[in-house]
Amino acid sequence: MKILKGKDVAHTIREQIKKDVEGLKNQGKHPKLAIVRLGSNPDDIYYENSIIKNCKDLGIVSEVFEKDLSISTENLVDLLTELNNEESISGILVFRPLPKHIDENIIRNSVSPGKDVDCMNSLNLGKIFEGDMTGFAPCTPKAAMEILKYYEIPMEGKNAVIINRSTVVGKPLAMMLLEENATVTICHSRTRDLEKVAKEADIVLTALGRAKMFGPEYFHKESIIIDIGMSPDSQGKMSGDIDYDKVYQDVAGITPVPGGVGSVTTSILLKQVVEACK
Amino acid sequence: MKILKGKDVAHTIREQIKKDVEGLKNQGKHPKLAIVRLGSNPDDIYYENSIIKNCKDLGIVSEVFEKDLSISTENLVDLLTELNNEESISGILVFRPLPKHIDENIIRNSVSPGKDVDCMNSLNLGKIFEGDMTGFAPCTPKAAMEILKYYEIPMEGKNAVIINRSTVVGKPLAMMLLEENATVTICHSRTRDLEKVAKEADIVLTALGRAKMFGPEYFHKESIIIDIGMSPDSQGKMSGDIDYDKVYQDVAGITPVPGGVGSVTTSILLKQVVEACK
Repeated sequence: MKILKGKDVAHTIREQIKKDVEGLKNQGKHPKLAIVRLGSNPDDIYYENSIIKNCKDLGIVSEVFEKDLSISTENLVDLLTELNNEESISGILVFRPLPKHIDENIIRNSVSPGKDVDCMNSLNLGKIFEGDMTGFAPCTPKAAMEILKYYEIPMEGKNAVIINRSTVVGKPLAMMLLEENATVTICHSRTRDLEKVAKEADIVLTALGRAKMFGPEYFHKESIIIDIGMSPDSQGKMSGDIDYDKVYQDVAGITPVPGGVGSVTTSILLKQVVEACK
Repeated sequence: MKILKGKDVAHTIREQIKKDVEGLKNQGKHPKLAIVRLGSNPDDIYYENSIIKNCKDLGIVSEVFEKDLSISTENLVDLLTELNNEESISGILVFRPLPKHIDENIIRNSVSPGKDVDCMNSLNLGKIFEGDMTGFAPCTPKAAMEILKYYEIPMEGKNAVIINRSTVVGKPLAMMLLEENATVTICHSRTRDLEKVAKEADIVLTALGRAKMFGPEYFHKESIIIDIGMSPDSQGKMSGDIDYDKVYQDVAGITPVPGGVGSVTTSILLKQVVEACK
């Protein structure tokens, strides 16, 4: 059994970012991330602080644009247009989910594709769908893929089962796994006999957000598990979708939560800020 | 066993098209399809003649823009820009594959999204990926879905196996099946033990283009088979991916080739021309 720690993966990515930032500075370029946050949801602020700290460590400038939760779609588009036009800004991150009165489709597509480091824009998402992996990718599925690659988990011809069908996680992850020549199954709440489906997989990737949902009956000795879920368990402790303590000894590899996919996501985001600056 | 004939499905779609065309004419609107063909590949001309005949039958105007195979990307873009700007044209179809010297990505995205009745443009493809099925869809996967719906094949919670991972067929088909709450597996040339994977499916959809590739060992009594393949067999006769004669009596439902998905595709295309005119 191998613990697929995110930390080592993130470290490697960060070392590359440092070099790239250095190189850019020598050319007089300074990568800068604009963070757009509405209201002050504690989860958003927690993530924001982590991003700001990471930016500082890596020599990337960050600036937070905090707006009231009641902002209109129109005013938010105006802000994004300003940020798109502001030359000093390389990348733009908008925290989601957005309040219900805001038209998310309009906002997503108001971020200029060249500054869309979180891959919200339909054009960038469309590229992923078309198998073009050269542009910006959604950070969470990309982090999952980086972990598989870092630990040299074979994907070609393997059965990969994804438990999530969202546009932000499950679907782009499916496209990325297809690019690696995996056979890909996309599961969701209506899937019958998920236990059997997961048990037949070589790699299981879950992003359900239900703490400790999957016990040992879903896996086998050779299973590789990428746990993208993160939600509080019955004791209020943050936990993945996998009942880790009951599972980890009887599988071939598993990402911990915390310390797994989530710890790589920010590095992917900042890598993309640097790419945007180039 | 049920033969899932495309003819009946196409008939229903065509009746609706006729009504819609009538309604549009009463408003002074006349749907028109522009067909862009490079060179004179016999398959293209065969398909073109079938489209022109169907257009006539349904009261849709069609016009063919034939260009030399040696046309440059730039000149083809100029033609598409003209067609985009020409108000009388509702929809544009460009025959593919394009010659190798032409940049297909540029051409695809040069068709205005509102006239893109074959769903080439990244914006329209992106909508499919995002689960928005309100716009134009790629005609072949959409035809497969219309057959499943017409014959009231249950999809919710069913295991659907797609043997094709192209952006034109397999991937959009996966997205459409997910919208119907099927569990979706995408297979391809690197898939191991395809026989087992197909045999565990409730619905198998193949688009491999290898005549009679799949015999009875891939299916069971309850299998529903949608055969999107079309290629000449060893006697030169057009055939699907399924070894039909050996399979059809031992499954629950199967589309014939010819007379299956292919016979619905043109109706989908023309339905989208009418939608574009609206």
